[in-house]
Amino acid sequence: MHCINQNKIQMTDHNTPLAHHHISVDCVVVGFDGEQLKVLLLKRIIKEDGNEYHDMKLPGSLIYQDEDPDSAAQRVLEEQAGLKRMTLEQFKAFGSRDRTKNIKDVQWLERAIKMKVDRIVTIAYLSLVKISSSNTAFTAGGNELRWIPIDNPGELAFDHNIIINEALKRIRQSVSTDPIYLFQLLPHKFTALQLRTLFERIYGKALDVRNFQKKLKQMTYVVPLDEYEKNVAHRAARYYRFDKVEYNKTRR
Amino acid sequence: MHCINQNKIQMTDHNTPLAHHHISVDCVVVGFDGEQLKVLLLKRIIKEDGNEYHDMKLPGSLIYQDEDPDSAAQRVLEEQAGLKRMTLEQFKAFGSRDRTKNIKDVQWLERAIKMKVDRIVTIAYLSLVKISSSNTAFTAGGNELRWIPIDNPGELAFDHNIIINEALKRIRQSVSTDPIYLFQLLPHKFTALQLRTLFERIYGKALDVRNFQKKLKQMTYVVPLDEYEKNVAHRAARYYRFDKVEYNKTRR
Repeated sequence: MHCINQNKIQMTDHNTPLAHHHISVDCVVVGFDGEQLKVLLLKRIIKEDGNEYHDMKLPGSLIYQDEDPDSAAQRVLEEQAGLKRMTLEQFKAFGSRDRTKNIKDVQWLERAIKMKVDRIVTIAYLSLVKISSSNTAFTAGGNELRWIPIDNPGELAFDHNIIINEALKRIRQSVSTDPIYLFQLLPHKFTALQLRTLFERIYGKALDVRNFQKKLKQMTYVVPLDEYEKNVAHRAARYYRFDKVEYNKTRR
Repeated sequence: MHCINQNKIQMTDHNTPLAHHHISVDCVVVGFDGEQLKVLLLKRIIKEDGNEYHDMKLPGSLIYQDEDPDSAAQRVLEEQAGLKRMTLEQFKAFGSRDRTKNIKDVQWLERAIKMKVDRIVTIAYLSLVKISSSNTAFTAGGNELRWIPIDNPGELAFDHNIIINEALKRIRQSVSTDPIYLFQLLPHKFTALQLRTLFERIYGKALDVRNFQKKLKQMTYVVPLDEYEKNVAHRAARYYRFDKVEYNKTRR
């Protein structure tokens, strides 16, 4: 059984449990500004050979000695983005060796933590929040933060593009199981167009308007208000609100 | 702001990134024997003060230097349970400090890997398989394995009881989103009673028989066969099969 022997030889070379590795958390905070799904990213400054350049990354950190991953994720958002007591859902761990294939990422991290880095396993968290279209950039804890369109964030640090794609898959899955997740992203009053646009952004494809109107009527928990948009160039659209009591009735 | 200062002091004491920690994978393999949902566990032998005792644990292992977590999970099932090329879904990472609060677990692991263990972050995988009621115990790779009822597995190693509970939650969530997961657990031909029992085991409560019959009729992809049970004491029940083509039509 040559094949099996070969496997065994390979295993003997490499079957040492990992020692020089680290555990981190990364937070994917997603908002909807009425037109686009956006992810919260922070600017990373890299100094190399006297030059300074920058890119973007997810808020994240290695976890501390006495810290659980869930607490580390809360700390990260508070320290790096000024966001407190967020609702966070752990959605996936990323531990591929490829995570640290970009030498610049490794150098940046080793300089920051003053430690040798081999592999970093990160536990990724997702948070859905309400954002306004005006709130596109801010600073917190000495960091520059930006809301960037989730479908085109540019080339990010480490495997953060992959993490964001997986977060989007999780959002899709969650919305399919339970539409309540939609209303975590929408303002307290919203137009039918905003709800449809949100669906389209999550699923990455246009919805037929008539089908959507039918769907909206079936959603008895989306209640029309006697309020309309103001100061708009087009015909003022009606506002709706999410009715949680009605919603809970449909889920029994 | 006394409160904030206190936080800062705490952080200074403990804000060293973790160094003596390890990364493992654990596999929750779940099957349904027609009556109960069962999880695959292996016997762990603990030697202490000249005595030997044992308990049960999930198949699992620290990951190796050149191994990605997904490959480690496949290796674990092949090496420890003789199961090859399984369909595995990563469902959650567990990294609480409490994971190693039982000194016996730490001693057992330190003896096995000949290394100091502080914290182990484990990435947990789920696999749904078809099992037969006769196949309740077997050996593989020098391990004794058993299919144990998932709702009463006894006190397991580390936090494996918690991991199994989270796996059950994930199964519930997956079945709600997509009933195809049910048929991964059922034999190729199954009775209506088996399907109902499976629902009941997953949701942990009895279903009303009439409601279930209605539900069954709506599931156009559950197709009655012209075959009936044989050699049974009660009235022979009809067999059904899962029709994937029909199923795909309903999911469009």
